[in-house]
Amino acid sequence: MLEKLYSLLQEHYNEMVEIRRHLHQHPELSFQEVETPKFIANYHQKLGHEVRTGVGERGVVAKLHGAKPGKTIALRADFDALPIHEENDFPYKSKKPGVMHACGHDTHTATLLVLAKVLNKLQNEIEGTIVFIHQHAEEYMPGGAIAMIEDGCLEGVDVIFGQHISSGEPLGEIGYRSGPLMAAADRFHIKLQGRGGHGAHPHEANDSIVLGAQLIVNLQQIVSRRIDPLESAVLSIGEFDAKNAFNVIADSVTLTGTVRTFNENIRNKMEREIERVIEGTCLTAAASYDYNYVHGYPALVNHAAETKFVAQLASEVPGVTAAVEIAPRMGGEDFAYYLQKVPGTFFNTGAAIVGRTPYPHHHPKFDIDERGMLIAANMLATATVKYMEQQGVVDTTVIETL
Amino acid sequence: MLEKLYSLLQEHYNEMVEIRRHLHQHPELSFQEVETPKFIANYHQKLGHEVRTGVGERGVVAKLHGAKPGKTIALRADFDALPIHEENDFPYKSKKPGVMHACGHDTHTATLLVLAKVLNKLQNEIEGTIVFIHQHAEEYMPGGAIAMIEDGCLEGVDVIFGQHISSGEPLGEIGYRSGPLMAAADRFHIKLQGRGGHGAHPHEANDSIVLGAQLIVNLQQIVSRRIDPLESAVLSIGEFDAKNAFNVIADSVTLTGTVRTFNENIRNKMEREIERVIEGTCLTAAASYDYNYVHGYPALVNHAAETKFVAQLASEVPGVTAAVEIAPRMGGEDFAYYLQKVPGTFFNTGAAIVGRTPYPHHHPKFDIDERGMLIAANMLATATVKYMEQQGVVDTTVIETL
Amino acid sequence: MLEKLYSLLQEHYNEMVEIRRHLHQHPELSFQEVETPKFIANYHQKLGHEVRTGVGERGVVAKLHGAKPGKTIALRADFDALPIHEENDFPYKSKKPGVMHACGHDTHTATLLVLAKVLNKLQNEIEGTIVFIHQHAEEYMPGGAIAMIEDGCLEGVDVIFGQHISSGEPLGEIGYRSGPLMAAADRFHIKLQGRGGHGAHPHEANDSIVLGAQLIVNLQQIVSRRIDPLESAVLSIGEFDAKNAFNVIADSVTLTGTVRTFNENIRNKMEREIERVIEGTCLTAAASYDYNYVHGYPALVNHAAETKFVAQLASEVPGVTAAVEIAPRMGGEDFAYYLQKVPGTFFNTGAAIVGRTPYPHHHPKFDIDERGMLIAANMLATATVKYMEQQGVVDTTVIETL
Amino acid sequence: MLEKLYSLLQEHYNEMVEIRRHLHQHPELSFQEVETPKFIANYHQKLGHEVRTGVGERGVVAKLHGAKPGKTIALRADFDALPIHEENDFPYKSKKPGVMHACGHDTHTATLLVLAKVLNKLQNEIEGTIVFIHQHAEEYMPGGAIAMIEDGCLEGVDVIFGQHISSGEPLGEIGYRSGPLMAAADRFHIKLQGRGGHGAHPHEANDSIVLGAQLIVNLQQIVSRRIDPLESAVLSIGEFDAKNAFNVIADSVTLTGTVRTFNENIRNKMEREIERVIEGTCLTAAASYDYNYVHGYPALVNHAAETKFVAQLASEVPGVTAAVEIAPRMGGEDFAYYLQKVPGTFFNTGAAIVGRTPYPHHHPKFDIDERGMLIAANMLATATVKYMEQQGVVDTTVIETL
Repeated sequence: MLEKLYSLLQEHYNEMVEIRRHLHQHPELSFQEVETPKFIANYHQKLGHEVRTGVGERGVVAKLHGAKPGKTIALRADFDALPIHEENDFPYKSKKPGVMHACGHDTHTATLLVLAKVLNKLQNEIEGTIVFIHQHAEEYMPGGAIAMIEDGCLEGVDVIFGQHISSGEPLGEIGYRSGPLMAAADRFHIKLQGRGGHGAHPHEANDSIVLGAQLIVNLQQIVSRRIDPLESAVLSIGEFDAKNAFNVIADSVTLTGTVRTFNENIRNKMEREIERVIEGTCLTAAASYDYNYVHGYPALVNHAAETKFVAQLASEVPGVTAAVEIAPRMGGEDFAYYLQKVPGTFFNTGAAIVGRTPYPHHHPKFDIDERGMLIAANMLATATVKYMEQQGVVDTTVIETL
Repeated sequence: MLEKLYSLLQEHYNEMVEIRRHLHQHPELSFQEVETPKFIANYHQKLGHEVRTGVGERGVVAKLHGAKPGKTIALRADFDALPIHEENDFPYKSKKPGVMHACGHDTHTATLLVLAKVLNKLQNEIEGTIVFIHQHAEEYMPGGAIAMIEDGCLEGVDVIFGQHISSGEPLGEIGYRSGPLMAAADRFHIKLQGRGGHGAHPHEANDSIVLGAQLIVNLQQIVSRRIDPLESAVLSIGEFDAKNAFNVIADSVTLTGTVRTFNENIRNKMEREIERVIEGTCLTAAASYDYNYVHGYPALVNHAAETKFVAQLASEVPGVTAAVEIAPRMGGEDFAYYLQKVPGTFFNTGAAIVGRTPYPHHHPKFDIDERGMLIAANMLATATVKYMEQQGVVDTTVIETL
Repeated sequence: MLEKLYSLLQEHYNEMVEIRRHLHQHPELSFQEVETPKFIANYHQKLGHEVRTGVGERGVVAKLHGAKPGKTIALRADFDALPIHEENDFPYKSKKPGVMHACGHDTHTATLLVLAKVLNKLQNEIEGTIVFIHQHAEEYMPGGAIAMIEDGCLEGVDVIFGQHISSGEPLGEIGYRSGPLMAAADRFHIKLQGRGGHGAHPHEANDSIVLGAQLIVNLQQIVSRRIDPLESAVLSIGEFDAKNAFNVIADSVTLTGTVRTFNENIRNKMEREIERVIEGTCLTAAASYDYNYVHGYPALVNHAAETKFVAQLASEVPGVTAAVEIAPRMGGEDFAYYLQKVPGTFFNTGAAIVGRTPYPHHHPKFDIDERGMLIAANMLATATVKYMEQQGVVDTTVIETL
Repeated sequence: MLEKLYSLLQEHYNEMVEIRRHLHQHPELSFQEVETPKFIANYHQKLGHEVRTGVGERGVVAKLHGAKPGKTIALRADFDALPIHEENDFPYKSKKPGVMHACGHDTHTATLLVLAKVLNKLQNEIEGTIVFIHQHAEEYMPGGAIAMIEDGCLEGVDVIFGQHISSGEPLGEIGYRSGPLMAAADRFHIKLQGRGGHGAHPHEANDSIVLGAQLIVNLQQIVSRRIDPLESAVLSIGEFDAKNAFNVIADSVTLTGTVRTFNENIRNKMEREIERVIEGTCLTAAASYDYNYVHGYPALVNHAAETKFVAQLASEVPGVTAAVEIAPRMGGEDFAYYLQKVPGTFFNTGAAIVGRTPYPHHHPKFDIDERGMLIAANMLATATVKYMEQQGVVDTTVIETL
């Protein structure tokens, strides 16, 4: 069955490219997707799949019911684009000024649609159900995943697989990691309220710029002294907003920043310690504050057995030349929510263009080698079929202790 | 002669009020004064004074030559307004939206014009020359004084007197101080250049917000540790400009601030020490910087003999109920430049409105008791006449050491 | 009468030198003085003065009752030495290892004793009473003055005069200053309690060294931002005690320091602000603290009329070549307590040795030109006699406002 | 053969206990060991092993040559004690006041000696050579390992195994970890040279305590901002030495601290960044410094194949109830040096005493369950025999990438 799938995918590679290029020319921003979900729903409807639109507002869920009973396997692709003005000049560049598929979600969608068509052709051999989760709004908090899950997209699902194309790793390389792969990405806002005044009379005012500076300096100790050095945590202030005349003492200042962690305990500790430091620093100056900590996507934690399962099967997948264990990454991904509900894993599909220094994701010249889509499809196909055949027994050897 | 002057001033008090209210309704910003100097020049020309316009670009200098030989005495009034939208609602409020005489320069001008008219009437008794210096642009660096001096307004001048009306001190109170009265007011700009990046990857960037915070904290030691505690110095940062997305590491930040000092050595030390701290702080982080220190008005240093002269004559001046030695003030005033060239003094004329908490200078509801103008005119008249009569011998008793 | 006094003092100058050299060889530490007060009491007893010993524990008060009625004038000299090992090699150097008259209190005592002998000779002409206050323990808090006052040394006193010899100002120069002359000198102790641990596991401990560092940095803002720049304030940490192994996280640290101020409001504000900053800084780290602020001598504030009186009479005193207004000094002096109770002034008597760079007070090579003693005696004699003759009317011209 | 070994070890368990208790009563400090190496050498000599003493100054190396050819396997035990006064009260407590086997090196030695005796009995079956490395001075830098290696103790060695007993993990639990297990532990000394002075005159001095405080605060940014959050790094200051009078400004201060890392690049970066921050901070204050960074033991990095080999064989070893992958530890261990030269692994042998909260290593009441020694001996025996039988082929399945 896998051999058949591989050759069907190869046969349909051109369609994959066409779809990707079509989507690339018509990108839609997160939470503003209209044409893309229509296109996806239409594609699945033509294949005769059970299709539900508007899932979690804008997502599309399609189901392929196999001829035989079995497990329910979900495959997810996201489809939103970014507020970036494309600077590539290939013929299929974005037609929408200021909007661009600069993270490769167009490829994820093209991969999953063509894989659906090909699996559909083998419906007679399929055991169980394959759920195609087409998710909107991955790029913008709170993301589409959480709403789609609340709207039932994971009902009955036994396992979920997802992947991200990568402009930075070589074509043929699959990256896997058990446990935390992507960080929890939170945001916070701090307003420090001093008392304004004339720059010549500091003692009559309460200088909120010096207070803000002191706070930032004091905050460094959280990572340097209070977090287990074996854990990872980042606290960055992106904005210090205090635009006043040169001879004024600032009445208030606003700081905005981000926290990145992999461990929920560390995440909670960061949130609490930041407030402790704000509270104490304000007390040193008899100032007051507002503190608002917004939880973003949680850490994406791959399940051990499913990850090992995918890492091992990679060696048999056409086009894969290496499967490497990759380091965790401090960026966020709302696939994390699915993995909080069902077993599964999220892997990386290398698709660097040979012979040039890759532009990173979110860059106006971002691009990938489209053959990466075929490899991703082969990987997802293999995972689906093997999981189906083994009836969900992905690994008997993952035993942490004897 | 003084008694005649006092009663003539009293007679012309209504005109003083009229002029002030006219100017109040037609304020003009620093370096944009057109109608005000015309009005002033016209007034003096009608009196038959020697008038020079466009002095130092926009100033007006008028001279009253007495019938007898004698000293040359300069009296100065400034005439520019502020970019403030008036919130008073009396009938003569500003007719120009966003521009207001919120520091009382309208009263200074009305005082000086009517004093000129009254002195003119006694031209036969006057010994020497009285120079009326009507200065533009006191509110905005580099100020009008320096240009008017370069343009010759002090040529032949033996002494200069000036005064500032005050909304905060009681009507009838004259404030004097020998030595430093107003601070040198400088401005500085600092640009710190780190290296931008993603908030999740601090080690790949060079965080200029943390650098700026550290710099502000380090700068506190200049005043707290490096300046003689018996001297005065202020270093205030008014602006910390670093507006970025929450998940970005800032590439660069801009700080702007002010330094206030009374002593030229301390002023120079502040300028140097700030750079030392910037340089060292940037070195800790392998960052670079631009530092631009702009000298504003120097400290206004009243001459001892002339100040004692004015303080002592105050007791005889109609309307004056007290002459008090006032503390130095951290604000700036470009009358300082005149006092670098010729002897003289600058005093404070109380004009608080009875029965209400005064609004400070530069406040949209700033106002004064107009009778303060008459007192100021009486003071300047007395100083002028007495100086004239004593032929410039203002004090024989100012001896610092035995 | 003054002329007689001046020539008698000149005649007894050799005795003054002998007494000073005797005391210099036999210095006694603060609160350990035994032989010195005996010597002093004996001297006065031989003159027939009323003598009280053990005043305030170790002080000596002698009274010369004049033949005529009049005011009661106190003259004060301190007599304790310092825990310094003398490095001078003149024949009369200290015979006590580690103890030295390194601040000139030996000269103060010699001056006052010989002046007492000379005044005693003119007892018939003297109006009122002269009180010779020989004070122990000026060098060590809480000082001897406060105890002697509590023990009645100022009873009936109308005015008090005191002086300090100075190795740094030229012989013949008298230094005066109305208002604050010497600072209030306070001491504080801070213990910061974190939680000790292994240097490799910061998150399991609570690093009190980083906390102490942060506190010191935060404390800089008190002087730089919260104290009126026209006022003087110093906050210095002299001791940071945290001696541990290199790989330990400190459980607690101790900081000790001093605060200097001239204005009681500023002094109180310093005490409160330090605690505020400690409290807030500890809160940032969930640490606790002990804070102990010990008030030392208050600021020495000379009375205006008595200071002007002394400054003006200086011009007639033999040996005085200049009377200069000196700047306030950040050091402390417990003469301050007398001036809180009765009018008076404390002045500086220059006695630099010509031709060499002076060693400062408290230096192992401290020395002065002994002729300064004669000038000091002449000054005190003049102040005493003039005050007596004017019956305490020291000045009619000190009028702060008109 | 293993079964024979296990039962022989069981038979000799009492001797193991006796030896351990003997050593426990006669502890010797690092680099002061005299009797312990004599005892060890004597033991091996009686067994007829080839013995070399004074290896790297105080170490003992014994060799058991098997009857057949084969690999050369080294087993290492350290034998030094700590400067701690024992507070246990069992009969075999330390007889040397202030010196104690508080880290369990006595057990390591007893384990290895008895294992040597037992292996010796099977000399006919042994292939190759077993090298017993008895190392002095593990507790004190630079440690004994490096000198013993330089003195040839690893010559011809194919693999090395070592273990540490643990009071904190349960009896029966073996802890392993491939890659970095123990941190590199470095030490640094910083002297900051300001300029001393009187606490009342900060502007005349250069306050090295404030400088030290600022430095510590600035140093926090190295870990918080400049080290990859996926790497581990610790920078702790253990000592801040600035003991002066309260009213003095410190001339210089001394800071001493430790750095812990696992990655040599990070280690080097820490060393460099610390200097950068010192240099810049001193520049802010025109101060100077001495900086001395002393490299301690490097990170202990277990070899992947040998670690997997030991982890897998643990399941068959008598007494072992679990083999767990343990987290890296920030403490140091000079076994690291052996692993830089030859393949091998270092594991943890749980020996917590049931029913009480364990005292940590280096505690005056440190103790372990002596049965842990038998388990350790079984583990080392198994590793030795299996390695011998497989002729060094420890693992064919450790393949990082496909």
